[in-house]
Order: sequence, then structure tokens, then C-alpha cells
Amino acid sequence: MKDKITKRADDYSRWYTDVIVQSKLADYSPVKGCMVIRPNGFALWEKMQAQMDRMFKDTGHVNAYFPVFIPESFMQKEAEHVEGFSPECAVVTHAGGKDLEESLMVRPTSETIINSMYSKWINSYRDLPVLINQWCNVVRWEMRTRLFLRTTEFLWQEGHTAHATYEEAEDETIRMLGVYADFAEKYMAIPVLRGIKSEAEKFAGALHTYCIEAMMGDKKSLQSGTSHNLGQNFAKAFNTKYQTKDGNQEYVWQTSWGVSTRLIGAIIMVHGDDQGLIMPPKLAPNQIVMVPIWRDDEAKDKVLTPASKITEELKKDFSVKFDDRDQYSPGWKFNEWEMLGVPIRIEIGPKDVENESVVMVRRDSREKIKVKWEDVPSTAGKLLDEIHNNLFDRALNFRKDNTFTIDDYADFKDRIENEGGFYSAHWCGSGECEEKVKNETMATIRLIPMNQEREEGMCLYCGNASKERVIFAKAY
Amino acid sequence: MKDKITKRADDYSRWYTDVIVQSKLADYSPVKGCMVIRPNGFALWEKMQAQMDRMFKDTGHVNAYFPVFIPESFMQKEAEHVEGFSPECAVVTHAGGKDLEESLMVRPTSETIINSMYSKWINSYRDLPVLINQWCNVVRWEMRTRLFLRTTEFLWQEGHTAHATYEEAEDETIRMLGVYADFAEKYMAIPVLRGIKSEAEKFAGALHTYCIEAMMGDKKSLQSGTSHNLGQNFAKAFNTKYQTKDGNQEYVWQTSWGVSTRLIGAIIMVHGDDQGLIMPPKLAPNQIVMVPIWRDDEAKDKVLTPASKITEELKKDFSVKFDDRDQYSPGWKFNEWEMLGVPIRIEIGPKDVENESVVMVRRDSREKIKVKWEDVPSTAGKLLDEIHNNLFDRALNFRKDNTFTIDDYADFKDRIENEGGFYSAHWCGSGECEEKVKNETMATIRLIPMNQEREEGMCLYCGNASKERVIFAKAY
Repeated sequence: MKDKITKRADDYSRWYTDVIVQSKLADYSPVKGCMVIRPNGFALWEKMQAQMDRMFKDTGHVNAYFPVFIPESFMQKEAEHVEGFSPECAVVTHAGGKDLEESLMVRPTSETIINSMYSKWINSYRDLPVLINQWCNVVRWEMRTRLFLRTTEFLWQEGHTAHATYEEAEDETIRMLGVYADFAEKYMAIPVLRGIKSEAEKFAGALHTYCIEAMMGDKKSLQSGTSHNLGQNFAKAFNTKYQTKDGNQEYVWQTSWGVSTRLIGAIIMVHGDDQGLIMPPKLAPNQIVMVPIWRDDEAKDKVLTPASKITEELKKDFSVKFDDRDQYSPGWKFNEWEMLGVPIRIEIGPKDVENESVVMVRRDSREKIKVKWEDVPSTAGKLLDEIHNNLFDRALNFRKDNTFTIDDYADFKDRIENEGGFYSAHWCGSGECEEKVKNETMATIRLIPMNQEREEGMCLYCGNASKERVIFAKAY
Repeated sequence: MKDKITKRADDYSRWYTDVIVQSKLADYSPVKGCMVIRPNGFALWEKMQAQMDRMFKDTGHVNAYFPVFIPESFMQKEAEHVEGFSPECAVVTHAGGKDLEESLMVRPTSETIINSMYSKWINSYRDLPVLINQWCNVVRWEMRTRLFLRTTEFLWQEGHTAHATYEEAEDETIRMLGVYADFAEKYMAIPVLRGIKSEAEKFAGALHTYCIEAMMGDKKSLQSGTSHNLGQNFAKAFNTKYQTKDGNQEYVWQTSWGVSTRLIGAIIMVHGDDQGLIMPPKLAPNQIVMVPIWRDDEAKDKVLTPASKITEELKKDFSVKFDDRDQYSPGWKFNEWEMLGVPIRIEIGPKDVENESVVMVRRDSREKIKVKWEDVPSTAGKLLDEIHNNLFDRALNFRKDNTFTIDDYADFKDRIENEGGFYSAHWCGSGECEEKVKNETMATIRLIPMNQEREEGMCLYCGNASKERVIFAKAY
């Protein structure tokens, strides 16, 4: 099974696809650009969803569900929005055996349909803030697709909030970016940069867009979550107004924020190795797999009892898989669970039983540890924490080792092409320079880092004055 | 607020809509036939989903996600299926700015797209059974829609399983019907009849369909869950084969089963009253609401401390809302929480504080009970169980009181029109009689009860020989 996965060094992109297909996270569907998320992949998404949902609720949000269809005229109410999204829309033109009077877009994002409801629901300052999230599928007709990273249909969550003032909306935008960064770092074990997008890269219809970006194993960047301050753009388009305490009518201030199943792609690329997946312990569908080892029926009887007893003990605190399948050899099972990225494997054979011990094997470091039965649960907890920290540190060091400060454009051009990585460079702020860099190098401005010290300098491209550095990188 | 809800006796259908709109469970959307599930409604759905998902997993199922789009040609592979569903489909004819070569249906149900994957994934008997469930949105273009009960788009789950034999598939079909019945009775507090559908009412493409049916407050029936034995119909259409132990190629045997957000409609209609919703305790988003009562700041200080202390205590075991809002009077709050159907209200005023007691009010019976502070948590648990049992018994008695054995067609015609209810009557088994009854009375065969004793008789309509009784009723 192992040999079916291409090595990262040979072809990173094929390695990525091989890992997904072989570990049965997802599969190609017969519908162009749409994927199927298989049970192994969906179990991971469920854990991610559950954790994020808790974090959204802890910050005061509630869930709701809005229609999958958006009347074409709604999309057209916000000028930037329609320009950004219309070309990517799938359009329903007939239904129930008849042509529709007005075509319906399958939602690419729900600002417009949600505003049509908010304008009805929000009347007074007493109705604010509205803090709603939606978990759903969305469709964006993409030319080039890649499993999890860019698919025609994907699953995501989209938060849509309405506030009385700009400041409250801005606070919310930053708060949710913080939630995303916490989720990435504390649960996915993926370090992220936080920052603001350039005008060219912001959400179509937003005042400005914040984002988190993570470095993948091939040194490219993956936009891993965005949080938009929409200002009053959609409120004006949909006449979403509220009465202030003083009795005036004002447009609400809004935000929206989202992350999607592409985060699964980040987990694969940041942690995975040539043997397959490495699941971050806090999101692993199976945190531990117990593999009893026997050659004959006598040995089988001997190992199965303690193996299942330890498993039951572990299940009180962890997700544990008990693999007592008869038809596969221990070696076959080890390979399989390695490929699936289970953080800890426990082996127990007849000799271990005599010593009242097991062997615990870390997926991240391959380290093997002999552990007495009574110490297995406490050791498991400790190891899972260590694995999380190790995965995070490894990813952080990788990013640091591949992030460079650069001031010379020729040097940049050469290195982004040959070495890859993140490049911290001065930029004058003009969209023209940004576009030229993009066309000449395929690198884009991933973000303007938040809370960085101002530093005078000269634009990497044009040499004009610049007040701060931005991060250039190639991206998914 | 109360007076906005039409009384049930005046206009049941308006009462139903009033309750939904006033309690903010859902709202009409600008897209014809599509509803918006508002946070109050979605919180209920989340609890229902979480419980059902546990039950599905306990019976060995895993979740996955398949594309929302189905190529038109796929729908056409199973003859009955296309005939049943095509007229209801919404069709995407262009996307990404171009006309599509093949139109895509927005899924009305996923047997076809899922079989296209199963035929790829299933090779050997070792791959069976496949036990997959999907939570998703589906679209069926309905002419007449009603919030929750019949909407163009709705949320549901659809289980899709594949087995080596007919018997295994049949066992699964019955097992999942049992899960649905348990969920209805033990969580929704709604008694259900279990049975099999007639040919005319079965799922398009199935061998046969089992269902649960519940009596609503207006004595009509609501189909509340279906479980289909698909036989090899889809397997043949999609060439979904497996190699048996003997090395032969056989088509798999399949099932599918689903319940949807229409179950929320059942909760509203079975338990609700003229004051609004009554939430079944095990699914209530808020099981208890604590309403401190004060007239002046001195009293406020006095009640808030014990009120919040008791609330914190209760939160260890229950979902509790603490309503200390300043801008509303206690009476206004009582009405609101009654309308929202919170099973237990706790009132605490200055006099209660002096007695170290609270007043607990049951939503179902309006009974008020004085309870000492230390006894509040244990009393709450006991009351919630009692409320569940009372709601269930009330609904069961209502159904029993309105279920009649009938042998005379003229009598039946009169009573189904004027009294409504469920009618147990003999039926010869012919689709012709079934259709004539339907056309003449609007009543349909809801189900042929399972495990009932055989009884010889004469068909209610034609007088020919019949071997068992079936249930006729008007239905949503």
C-alpha cells in the first residue's frame, strides 16, 4: 500500500493527491470539479466543525440556515460583489418542468440572500448585534480544481453579523480572525500569519479583508480563513437599516467570515510525510489505534483480553480504534494506520503481555516507548500533547527557515522561482506594482502583517517610498 | 405578543404558521418555496441532528458528503426513479458563464450519484456492508409549500447502504425504521405507527418502503420517516457489483432512509397549544428558563445573586437560559418563554428569596410548584421526565381517541370529512381502489401496519376479499 504514494521530493502535487485517494479522505466525482468527501475525510471535518462551532458559540454566535438559491437580481445589487462572483456562478434556469421567470444562482456566498432577510428582521438598535453563522455547501465554478483546495462545490461556514457602528463591526472582524488563528494553531497545530489583504485580494464587496495564511510543505501559502469588514456596502444595497436610540435611521455595519473544507488540505500538506497523513492529535478521528499481535490461536487468546481491556480504559478519554481484524497481518495494519496518520499506535504481543507492558509508537517521530499497562492512559495524554507541540514547532520552524527579508527584485525573482518560500518586502501600495510582480513571478501579496513595526523603505518593484513590508509568496 | 397567534380551533393552518413566525423558528424567503430556518428553529434542529447522529453511529454508520449536482443522465438510469423525481428537479443549465454540455439536477435525493461512487468503491464481499449517511440540503420543486412540512429546499439526512444479500438489506431497512421510531417516541415524545407503504406510496425506485406516521393536532397524518429496501434496482442501473467469497459477481442489495426538517413541523403540531410551542424536554434548545423578578434596585440585588447561583448549578446538567433583561417586565417574559415552549420556567422574587425557595412552572400543564433551593436540580430532572411522559401520553391518547375501525364506506366518507382521524379498514390490495378512495375522500393509505394479526375481511371500497386492515387518513 505504501508504495502507491509518490514521494514528496519527486512530485509534491502527486504526493498530495495520492495521500488523499489512498487514505480514502476524498475521491473525484463524475461531476466536473466536485469531490466526494469519503468517511475518513468527513470524520476529520466533523471534528473540525464541532470545535469551531463551540468557539463560535462561545463568542456569542448562533446558527441558522438560508436558501441555497439566490435570485440573479440580488447578486447584482452590490456592484463589486456581482463582478467578483457572477462569472463563477452555477445557474438554475428551469425547475419543476418550467423555465423560471428569474434565474437562480446556486450560492457562491450568502451576503445578498442574508441581507434580504436582515433588512426585514432588523428594525431597532435593540435588534443589534445580529451574530449568525451558517454551515453549508457553496458552489463556485472553478476552471482548475484540486481535491479540498479548490473544488466546484465545497463545504464551509459563513458568519454574517450586523452591528450599530463601524467600530463594533471592526471589533467583530478582528475577533473572528482571532478565533480562526486560535483554531489553526491550537487544534490544527498549524502556525499562521495574520494580516490584511491588499485591495486586489480582498473580498468582492468588502471594505477590507483580514486573513490567516499558512505555509504548506512545498513552501507555498494557503489562505486558511478570511474575515471581512463589509462596512455598509450590503446594507445600502439591501436597505438594511435600524432606528438608533435617538430615533434616526442608520444603515447597519456588517461583517462576514468563513473557512472551508480546504483546511483539510492544509492539514495534509503541513503535517503529512512520505508515509501519508499525520493527524493533529486534537482533531484526529482516531487518536490511538490498538493493534494486538499474535501468530497462533493460543497467543491470540493471550493478547486480546489485555488489549481490549486497555482499549476500554483509553476510550474514557480518547478516540481509540481497536484493530483485531483477522485477515490482515500486523505489518499491513501498521502501514495502514501510519498512512491514515493516527497519532499513537499501541502494539501488544505475547511477550508484552508477559511483561505487562505495551509498545507505544508515535506517528510523528516514529519513537517507540515501552509502557507498563497502568501507565498507558497517562502516557497517552502526555504523548498526544507532545505530538501536537512537535507538529506545531516543526511547522513553525519550517516557516521561519523559509521566510526571507528581501529588498532586491532580481534576487527575489530568482529565489521565489528556485527556492520558494515567504518573502518580506517593501511595497509602495500601488495595485500596478502588485500586478506586475504577480505576472512576472506568480507571487502575490499574501497579506500585510498586523501589528508590525513601521519601517521606511523602497518598493521592491518600483523603488518608490514604502512604509511597511508585506509578505509575497506563491499560493494555492 | 400572545394575541398574534390565531387559535387552533379557529384556523389550525394559520395557527401553525403564526406559531412559527412569531416564535422565530423560520421565515419565508424571497426565493419561491424556500424557507429560512432562523436561530430558534436551527437550535432545535441541531439537537435533533446530534441525537440522531449518535443513534446512526451506534448502529455502525459513518458520515460522508456527495455532490449537490447530479448529471441528468444519471437520473435516467433507473426508470421508476426518473419518473418520480424528474418533474420536481431544479436544473442547472449553465455555469461559469457557459452553457453546460449536460444539464445538472440539484439533488432531490442521492441514490444515483452515490451509486456511481459505490460502483467504484465496492469490489469484493470484504467491502460490504457499506453503511454511509449524509446530512445535506435537497431540492424538490413543490407547487404548494408550507413552512417545514413541504419546502422547495429542505435539510435532511439520507442513509445509503449496500449489502451482500437481500436479507441483510431488509434487516437494515427495518433496523433504521426502528431507530426513527425510537427517536420519535423517546426524544420527540411523539408516538408513531410503523408500517409498510402501498405500491402507490412507496419511494420511486424501491422494492418497498417502510415508514413511521404520526397523528398531528388536527388529526391528519404526517409521514415522519421512511426506510426503503431498494433491492438491486440501483445496483443494476449503475452496475454496482461485488465478488462473492466463491468468486462470482453479484449486484449489491441496497437500502436508503431519511428524515428531514419536516420533523420540526411534527413537534409544533403534536405538542403546541394556543400559547405557542411546547418543546419536548430532551430536544428543547432551552430546557429551563430562569426569570428573576424585581420591582426596584434593592429587590433586584436581592434576587439576582441566588437566581444566578441556581442557574449555574442547573447548567451542570441542563440547558438553561438566564433572563435578567432589564427592558422587559416579568409578564412579558413569561409570555415569550411560553410561546417558545421552554418546558420549565423558574420564577424567583424577593419573597421567594426570604423563603429560600423558587416557583417552578411546567409549560405543559401550567402547574406551579414551590421548591426549596437545594431541591431545584433534582426537581428539574424529575419534572423534565414527567413532562416528556405527559407529552407522549397526551399525544398517544389523542391518537387512540381518534383512531377508528371502520367497515362501511359511506360512513367512512362522512367521518373522514367531518371528524378526521385515522381509519383502520380492510383493503383488497388493488391500486385502483386506493386511487378511487383518494380521489373521493382525499384520504390515502398511510401504511399497512407491521406485525399486526391477520384478519379476513372485505375491501372497504370494492368489497372483495382482504387479508388485513390498513390505515387510511388525510395527510400532510
